[in-house]
This record gives sequence, structure tokens and C-alpha cells, in this order.
Amino acid sequence: MQPKHPKESRTILTDLVLPSETNPLNNLFGGELLARMDRAASIAARRHSRRIVVTASVNHVAFKKMIPLGSVVTVEANLSRAFKSSMEVVIDVWVEDRESGLRSKANDAIYTFVAVDDSGNPVPVPPIEPESADEKERFDAALRRKQLSLVLAGKMKPSEATELKALFED
Amino acid sequence: MQPKHPKESRTILTDLVLPSETNPLNNLFGGELLARMDRAASIAARRHSRRIVVTASVNHVAFKKMIPLGSVVTVEANLSRAFKSSMEVVIDVWVEDRESGLRSKANDAIYTFVAVDDSGNPVPVPPIEPESADEKERFDAALRRKQLSLVLAGKMKPSEATELKALFED
Amino acid sequence: MQPKHPKESRTILTDLVLPSETNPLNNLFGGELLARMDRAASIAARRHSRRIVVTASVNHVAFKKMIPLGSVVTVEANLSRAFKSSMEVVIDVWVEDRESGLRSKANDAIYTFVAVDDSGNPVPVPPIEPESADEKERFDAALRRKQLSLVLAGKMKPSEATELKALFED
Amino acid sequence: MQPKHPKESRTILTDLVLPSETNPLNNLFGGELLARMDRAASIAARRHSRRIVVTASVNHVAFKKMIPLGSVVTVEANLSRAFKSSMEVVIDVWVEDRESGLRSKANDAIYTFVAVDDSGNPVPVPPIEPESADEKERFDAALRRKQLSLVLAGKMKPSEATELKALFED
Amino acid sequence: MQPKHPKESRTILTDLVLPSETNPLNNLFGGELLARMDRAASIAARRHSRRIVVTASVNHVAFKKMIPLGSVVTVEANLSRAFKSSMEVVIDVWVEDRESGLRSKANDAIYTFVAVDDSGNPVPVPPIEPESADEKERFDAALRRKQLSLVLAGKMKPSEATELKALFED
Amino acid sequence: MQPKHPKESRTILTDLVLPSETNPLNNLFGGELLARMDRAASIAARRHSRRIVVTASVNHVAFKKMIPLGSVVTVEANLSRAFKSSMEVVIDVWVEDRESGLRSKANDAIYTFVAVDDSGNPVPVPPIEPESADEKERFDAALRRKQLSLVLAGKMKPSEATELKALFED
Repeated sequence: MQPKHPKESRTILTDLVLPSETNPLNNLFGGELLARMDRAASIAARRHSRRIVVTASVNHVAFKKMIPLGSVVTVEANLSRAFKSSMEVVIDVWVEDRESGLRSKANDAIYTFVAVDDSGNPVPVPPIEPESADEKERFDAALRRKQLSLVLAGKMKPSEATELKALFED
Repeated sequence: MQPKHPKESRTILTDLVLPSETNPLNNLFGGELLARMDRAASIAARRHSRRIVVTASVNHVAFKKMIPLGSVVTVEANLSRAFKSSMEVVIDVWVEDRESGLRSKANDAIYTFVAVDDSGNPVPVPPIEPESADEKERFDAALRRKQLSLVLAGKMKPSEATELKALFED
Repeated sequence: MQPKHPKESRTILTDLVLPSETNPLNNLFGGELLARMDRAASIAARRHSRRIVVTASVNHVAFKKMIPLGSVVTVEANLSRAFKSSMEVVIDVWVEDRESGLRSKANDAIYTFVAVDDSGNPVPVPPIEPESADEKERFDAALRRKQLSLVLAGKMKPSEATELKALFED
Repeated sequence: MQPKHPKESRTILTDLVLPSETNPLNNLFGGELLARMDRAASIAARRHSRRIVVTASVNHVAFKKMIPLGSVVTVEANLSRAFKSSMEVVIDVWVEDRESGLRSKANDAIYTFVAVDDSGNPVPVPPIEPESADEKERFDAALRRKQLSLVLAGKMKPSEATELKALFED
Repeated sequence: MQPKHPKESRTILTDLVLPSETNPLNNLFGGELLARMDRAASIAARRHSRRIVVTASVNHVAFKKMIPLGSVVTVEANLSRAFKSSMEVVIDVWVEDRESGLRSKANDAIYTFVAVDDSGNPVPVPPIEPESADEKERFDAALRRKQLSLVLAGKMKPSEATELKALFED
Repeated sequence: MQPKHPKESRTILTDLVLPSETNPLNNLFGGELLARMDRAASIAARRHSRRIVVTASVNHVAFKKMIPLGSVVTVEANLSRAFKSSMEVVIDVWVEDRESGLRSKANDAIYTFVAVDDSGNPVPVPPIEPESADEKERFDAALRRKQLSLVLAGKMKPSEATELKALFED
């Protein structure tokens, strides 16, 4: 299959924080943001694979900043790497200050999706070819995360996780 | 106030058509799309004005194409022109074919917003300076629409609506 | 087909403004009201045609008054005129003051629906026979709006829009 | 306080059954209809009392007929009787057949509301003066239900529930 | 059919009061609680019968205590008695004080469900065998409520409602 | 602060998969399950700390099994370990087969919450004292995950992550 660039499937979801999505401190509920990121990331995975995609795992999400009611939130999803039928998607979340117009980083997350056919069986997806330095760095980190996840699930021996092992050897 | 370009406030909202948003034919409900366009357009108006904005009118919406459940829908909102405290926003809606990746136009709409202070009183907004040919054409059409709306509301004599009158004189 | 009176399909939707439907000023979101009006108007069009109906266009909506959280809102939808397979519906929105019980006009809107069969193809609908003076006036205005919409879409020459042209000739 | 007629606070809520409100048999969820009836009935109680009202009890609801997805449902709420600060509201639910236009009864229910001030303390409400035969019958039945509810709650001796006792003595 | 104990189908739904579920006093809407109790009770009825179940009636709900925004609410549903194809479910609602951790009773309700096949026809369900004193008391009360409901619906003569009649004879 | 046992804050949320929560394959959306787990886990963290809690991170979520529309889903949240002001919560998700009554594991996840005061500043929480073997194992694993997260964030040297380092040394 022909490799594709991350920018071909980049997905931007800009929307407001609505009153039904806030917690007792009047900030966006963690759970609502998780759902919104899942929708944006699944669209990116679908654009890359042109297949039905299902969420396979959420590898890491850090909530760095509270997002108040009425904020404009931009969720940007980019594929970092594709494996056989799975795709890792990196998600960046930005919040805008209404008066100054400045954007600041509120959150980042990594989700994995699997492309499936109509019966839900995995199907192959095109590889990713990173272009920018940032994309290349995310492409390499995706492999380390894949190894770590296999080690923690007991499906790979730690000694075989060469990329990861290096981390603990200095 | 310093004029701004349409691209500075351009807003993109890409999202799925969810099952709770469909009608008996399994297509996106007209009313749900109206609400989604309102959110995207209000973000564009807010980015341009850096003020709280409220919907003043919906001038025209044409539903050209049904949008089936599960579609990826991209709503793009661009300011066409700003008047004293009101802003006209043109909204284009695109639907993507999952298998081919092709986008086709499903809908366009024109909404008007007013910038207000915390008590809800109108406040001035920066003018729009169009750049591309398409932006210039929308900038001119916005004036004709403004005149038409004043004429239909009985607030301007038809004979004074010079831009509009020309249409009926050939 | 036997003509029908507007009152035979009149639709009333009285409901509260819920917290999930409000904007940062604690008033009903423009987009939510657009969706609510779409549901009421589509029921009126369906009662008139006894067919599945889909939203074809929103011709004009003016937001005259903010509608605060907790308000009782009455949406009343009446058919103004039916064309071959399309129906124009006029919508009036009223807000009630809880303490005095007085109702005031908050909004009006004009939507157009098309009656379709199960495959989504247009089917003919009965004509409207207006009774009251108000219904007759709306019936006539509907034709002018139809012409205007055809002219603006480039589907009718301005010189042929006789009802409309008269407006600009005095 | 001046008595009022039931028709002065009558409330009609006509709306569609949306996909998000259906159960696995594709019919309107019991719980969703309970919520919709609560909103309509609370508006009627608020119109009668011109006060904030809160749901005090649901006395009886019978689900007689399934209501399929896409139906037009009309909820009509009428006050049957007012006590010191509580109001009994009778709710009738109708479903319309799209093709024939016929309405059939799907459900009826009885809810009780209490009028409160801003701190949530009960305040007096005007009495109800029934007009039609149907309204008079509901007015009388409301007293029997009130007694029954006091007996079942252990707040009234069965021997004092004179209206109700008669039922079991023939 | 083999009798089952209430604990085998006991259902617990602990969740937050979200902003979209509150009324103007910032407490949980009666209608939303009715819907939440319906979902928990229908799961209990389904676990007991292992069938599709539909809400047949709501026999009584008393709202004893307001439940503020942000509360943790526990809905517990237990079968009190099963008849031929219907099941009575008793629902208790508890609210927790965040600081002290104490739970207090906010509400109780009685719903009846009917087990049906895929076409919606009633099917038989296993009987309930109460164990604790509390379960036995609820089992007996369920019969009285069944009789009362038949008498009020005119389907049983008051003189035949032996359990109930006793109440009014002292 | 007095240590507490995991069972004191255990939270169970049993609910149906509603039509508005499903994807194009008619299974529960990943994002909706993430939101539901966030609510259950935040209640457990709040019961343990008796404080307002906010989601700090989602450490790992694996979607093992699709959850079809209409399923009964049980989300169970248990605290595995508490650090200074943060709490790790382990979430298990079970799906029930309606006909056989059997439960199978559909998903597990690990979320971290921080207890805060009314201004959003972190406050200390009681330690966790594990009781069962399973609780002890999760208590130990929580420390390894904490170290891993500090290493990956560059806040701890890999050589200091003693628990974790052992993994890669055999």
C-alpha cells in the first residue's frame, strides 16, 4: 500500500464548551473532552485508512489546564504511525483566550484505532511517511510506545523491546 | 479599528453525524445542522471581534444534499463583511465519501451575529478586508443582502437600495 | 388534491429552556432555537402532506429578543403556502413572563420543506387555502419570497419575478 | 385568591420521537416519556400558580401503547385540582398516524407539583374552578386520589377518607 | 419456572447530577430522575426475566428531598414481586453528602414492567421468592397495590380486593 | 490522615447502552465509554477524599470487546493507591448477556484524579490500605505506573525508577 503523509488525514474540530459539558467547578468535564478527542481522532484514522475504525486503546492523556465554560477549544488530530491494521493518533488540544486571541496548550493525548471491515475484522492500512521534524519524532516515539504496551501486556519480553530498553540502560 | 482578514477568524468544525442527530430517513436532521453551523459561525464572529456574540439572524440556508448517519461533516465558517457591530458569516458544509476520500458540497448558509458587552449591548467591531477574489465577491454580496434585509423589514426604501435595485433594472 | 386550511396542520410546541441549551449570557442558544423550530415546522409540514418531509431551506430568521434560562417558550408553526411538492412554514416564537403571565414575541422564521417518498424523491402535496386576513397576507408574501429565492439562485430572470419587481418600481 | 379555569394553564407539547429516545424495540423509552410529561405538566402548574414549581409526586402512569421512532407525539397537560400549595395535573398523550392523520391515546398520567418561593418553601396557589363535565369529574377524582395517597402514607386514617371509603362499601 | 431471589437482579446505578439535568433552582429535574429510575428498574426486570422488558406503569413516586447539582446519586432497584408476565420493581434513591460521606434517602418509587418477545407480546417470567423481612413486606404490599390498580381501572370489584378491603374496615 | 480501604469508595454504575451512544457498527462509541468511566471513577475518588476531584490523566485504556446497542454495562471503579493529593483508580467494565445472564469483561482502564479545594489547588488525601490479594497487587502496580509516568515525562531519571528498572534487567 502507498504510504501517506500525516497532513492528508489531519483533522480539526473547533467547538465551544457547552453548559451541559461542565463539572462543579464550571470547567469542561474530563470525560467530555475524552469523548470529543475520540471523535476527532477517529476521523483522522478513518481519513487515513478509508475504512471503518474502532478505538483500540487510549495510551496516555494528560489534563494540563482547566478549560472553563464558554471557551473555544480546538482539537487537532494527527496520525503519528501506522502498524499492520492499527494507527496511533496524537491529539493536541488548544484553548483560546477570547480577549487577547492567544491560544495555549490544554491537553495532549494518544489514542490507537484499528481499521475493520463490515464484520469487525481487522484490515491492513497504508503506512505513514513523516515529513517534518516533529512528525519524525512522533513516528519514532510511536514504536517505543508500541513496545512498552506489548511488554506491559506480557506479549513481548522486555529484552526484545530494544528501543525501550535503551532508556533504562544509561 | 484595524481591519482584519477573513482568514484570521476562519473556523473549521469537523465532526461525525451521530445517531442521535438523524431523522427517519437516517440522514442528519436539518435542525441539528442549523445548530452546528451556528456554533461554528459564532466562533468565527467571536474570533474576529474578541467579544461575546449573539445570533441576530439567519439570512439563508439551502439544504442541497442529504447527509447520512456516520458521515464526516466539515463546517467551515468565514466572515464575509462586518458592519458597525454586526458581522455576516458565510458557512460552507462539506461531506466526505469514506471510500474515495472525495469531498462534496452539502450545504451553504449565511448567519449574522452581533457583538455585545456583558449586559448584552452592541459594541463596535473591526472592519473586514477581503483578500482573494472569492472573498471580495462575498464582501460585495453582503452589502446587497444587508440592503435587501432592510427593505424587507421596511427600514429602507427600495429606491435607496442602490446595489439591489440594479438587479431588477435590466 | 383537496386544498387544506392552515389550521388543520397548526403545531404548538411549548417547552422550557433547559440549562444545556444556553449560551454564556445564560440565554437560549440561537442554534438550539433553530433546531426546535425545525422540529415544530417539520411536524406541521408532515401533518399537511401526510408524507415524510425534509428541510429544504431556511429563508429568514430574526432573533428579536433574548430568551433566558428557565423561560417557557411557545413555538407555533403554520403553513403559509404549498407549491408542487414544497411547503413554506411560518414560525412564531413567544416567551412568557412567569409572574405576569404575559406573552411577548421573541422570534419569527420561515422554513421550507419538501415532501418525499421512502427513497427521498419529491411527491406532490395538497394546496393551502388561507382563511383569515393574516393567513391571506402570508399566502401572498410566500409567492414573493419564492420568486426572490429563484432570482437569487439564478433560476428566474428578475424581469419575470412580477410580484417582486413591483416592490422596486415605485 | 381568585379561582382559575383549567383552560387558562392548558399546555400542549407536540414533538417528534427522536432516535436518541428509543429502546431496543425502536419505541419511545418509558423514561423519556416520563421526562417529557414532567416538563409539560410543570409548565401548566407554573402557568396556574405563576410561581416556581417542583415535582412532588407521580401518582399514576399507565403505558397503553408503544410509540415508534419518528412518531408525532402530543402531550396535553391540564390542572385537575389545586390544594393549598399543591396542584394535581392530568396528562394525556396522543400519537398521530402519519398517513391517515388519526390520533390515538397512548398514555395518561397524573403528576403533583408544589409551588415554592426562591428558597424552596411552599406558597399558596389559586383554586381551580372546573367548567366542562370532564373537568368536573377529574376535579372530584383528584380528592379521592389525595385521600388515598394520605392513607397509604399513614397520614390519614382510612375511616376519615370518606370519599374513598364509599368505594369499598357497596 | 424456578423462583429467583430479589438479590439476583438487584441493580445499582451511581452517577453524578450533571448541569444538563437541573431545574431553575439548580436541583435535579423531576423528569430526569424519573428517566434514570426507569433505566435502573428496567435492567433489574431484564436481569430477572432475561427478556426484553417494557415499562407498563409507574405506580407511585414521591420526591422527598431536592437533589442539588453535582450530587452523587445512587439508584437501587429491587424486584418486589413477579406476576404472570409483569414485575413490580421498588426503587430507592440515595444522595451522599460529599464532606461527611453520609447517605440520605431522597426518593422512592414503584414501577411495573412487562416481559415481551421480539414482537412485543407478553411472555411468562419466574416468580420472586423474598428472603429478608423487608423483602417479604414488599412482596405482600405488591399484591395490595396490584389489587388497588385493578379496582381503580375498573377491572376488579372492590369487594373482591380482599387484601385491600381490610384496610378500610377497621 | 487515617488510611481507608478500597471497598469504602467502590462505585458501581450499571446502565444501558442507549441509541445516542453508538457508532456506525451499532456498538458503544469508545468516547462515550471513556466519559462514563470518568464519571464512575471520579465518584470513587471523591468518596475516598471527600473533596472536589478533577481528572489528571488517563494512563491506559484497552478496548477488548465491542459492546452492542441495548447491552447492560456495569462499570466498577476501585481506588488502587493514593499519593499525596492524587489517586489512581482502576476501572473494570463488564457486559451481560441478556439470555444467559453471564457477565464478560469488556474493558479495563486506569485514571488518575487530583483532589482540589474550591479554588482548584491540590489538597492532601488519605492513603489506601489494600486488603485482598488483588488489591495488594494493584497497589504495587500503581507505584510502577507512577514511576513510568514520571520517567516518560522527564521528571524522574530511569535509574531512580527502581521498581520499573527491575522489569528490564532480567
